[in-house]
Amino acid sequence: MTSWIYWIGMAGTVAFAITAVLAVAPKGIDLFGACVMGIITAVGGGTLRDIILDVPVFWSLDVNYIWVSLIASIITFYASRIFTRAYVTKVLLILDAVGISLFGIGAVDKVWDLSFGLPISPVLLGVLTAIGGGLLRDIIAGRKNLIMSREIYAIAVMLGCTLYVLVILYLPEYRIMGSISGIIVIFSLRLAVIQKNLIVPGWFYSNGQDDNNN
Amino acid sequence: MTSWIYWIGMAGTVAFAITAVLAVAPKGIDLFGACVMGIITAVGGGTLRDIILDVPVFWSLDVNYIWVSLIASIITFYASRIFTRAYVTKVLLILDAVGISLFGIGAVDKVWDLSFGLPISPVLLGVLTAIGGGLLRDIIAGRKNLIMSREIYAIAVMLGCTLYVLVILYLPEYRIMGSISGIIVIFSLRLAVIQKNLIVPGWFYSNGQDDNNN
Amino acid sequence: MTSWIYWIGMAGTVAFAITAVLAVAPKGIDLFGACVMGIITAVGGGTLRDIILDVPVFWSLDVNYIWVSLIASIITFYASRIFTRAYVTKVLLILDAVGISLFGIGAVDKVWDLSFGLPISPVLLGVLTAIGGGLLRDIIAGRKNLIMSREIYAIAVMLGCTLYVLVILYLPEYRIMGSISGIIVIFSLRLAVIQKNLIVPGWFYSNGQDDNNN
Repeated sequence: MTSWIYWIGMAGTVAFAITAVLAVAPKGIDLFGACVMGIITAVGGGTLRDIILDVPVFWSLDVNYIWVSLIASIITFYASRIFTRAYVTKVLLILDAVGISLFGIGAVDKVWDLSFGLPISPVLLGVLTAIGGGLLRDIIAGRKNLIMSREIYAIAVMLGCTLYVLVILYLPEYRIMGSISGIIVIFSLRLAVIQKNLIVPGWFYSNGQDDNNN
Repeated sequence: MTSWIYWIGMAGTVAFAITAVLAVAPKGIDLFGACVMGIITAVGGGTLRDIILDVPVFWSLDVNYIWVSLIASIITFYASRIFTRAYVTKVLLILDAVGISLFGIGAVDKVWDLSFGLPISPVLLGVLTAIGGGLLRDIIAGRKNLIMSREIYAIAVMLGCTLYVLVILYLPEYRIMGSISGIIVIFSLRLAVIQKNLIVPGWFYSNGQDDNNN
Repeated sequence: MTSWIYWIGMAGTVAFAITAVLAVAPKGIDLFGACVMGIITAVGGGTLRDIILDVPVFWSLDVNYIWVSLIASIITFYASRIFTRAYVTKVLLILDAVGISLFGIGAVDKVWDLSFGLPISPVLLGVLTAIGGGLLRDIIAGRKNLIMSREIYAIAVMLGCTLYVLVILYLPEYRIMGSISGIIVIFSLRLAVIQKNLIVPGWFYSNGQDDNNN
């Protein structure tokens, strides 16, 4: 079971690295820059989480996360044509969705077990773990980042993590079921976004001023 | 006394969150993004300080800072019309001035008591605590940040913190009076900026090259 | 010997601060902003390294790094005309090359001795230490950063650090010689770039897509 989760986590790491290289490649980057971006995107979120938690950074205990990100970045750099084919893109987006689901809920577990700023910090750091790497990538690459976009990405992670935290708080005997539900919520929302182009509803987005300015 | 400072600190936190949401709202952002920006701006500076000091992040010991930032962000998002009225804006700028005064001088106290890189680090981390959240906000939102602007903001914090450090160094018996003086210096400078549109004097700003280029 | 390395490290710190102030001055900045940028650039990389390693930040143990960066920044701000003369620029670039060589290889030593995520983390953190400060500077200043550029900078550090790590791994009895070789590799590559305008070869840069898009 644990090793099964470990391998899915690695697949998510690979997806993060590949999508990062694909995102920055059109801007003109060398192999080295692509690898730096791939690694930062893949492990950045968890690194920020561990620094805030003041625990050893996860990849210092298992450098396979770095190797896997590095190799995925190199392959993507030279084979980006393959990865931009429509069906491969969809597979990558789905792997990415699997990644953020597992990393988000996994972070809630880690933060909760450390009793760190309960009950809100697990949600906060769950979101940071899932989106932090992509945020760093976009800041370094000078791209518009996902906090400023209308795509349902971070919100999905927030909802799933909140659900899981509520289960731990009020139905602690169903914790395992809660974590699975959280993963399903995040993954389903992302899948709906990928398949149906779901965006943030209007009453949830923007405000009076924007209607005039934009 | 301590609880009095605590509540003023909370008011500063609220002011930071509100001004953050007001700053990013015109760029088009959803409720969730607004909350992320509000929280990052309100607690970001202190978080960076605590990470560098290698002490537990302050909001992990008192999550009210997160709740207060979150609620202030949500209210601001839906009621931004109120917060942009001229007199409300002035109240917010004054609360923000109170916030940076207290957070800057409070950081000097914390860093000094840890004997961390004396005597210059308390000033450095005082400034980082006061402006770090706003800096992160502007980097994530892709806005021109205050390091690159001519407004007297970080300099006010630096002057107040330096004054306080000099008092601790040379007149340690007047430490409490020194901290109050530091707060007054920062707050008065900011008040002068808000009321009189004070900017950095010319001999202090730019240099030979700029005169030609800009 | 140690004190000799210490002084060269200080010279590298000075070079980092000076080049930072020269880089941001044309954008219009005040003295205070220049000092902040100078200090962040000079000590930022090592600070990120120490935070990830979870060891005390190096400048908290020796604040001379901060003082030296501060003084270099102030002098550069008022005397930038001198520093932009062609031969002074070359001296600065060479000092910068000395700085990244020493900081990169020094970081490998530090990380290796902490047995932190061997064998790949020493290379990763060697590069981060050498380029992290410049990266922070460019992000704060809103400039295109070196990850996104074709100049051989971070790659030079990566090659030198990798060579040193390979020597420690396979020829541990030649460790001192390995560290000197690593420094020479980084410095020589940078010198070739500075003198001959060496850039990243084409097969190493960009990919199929870019040829069409750029």
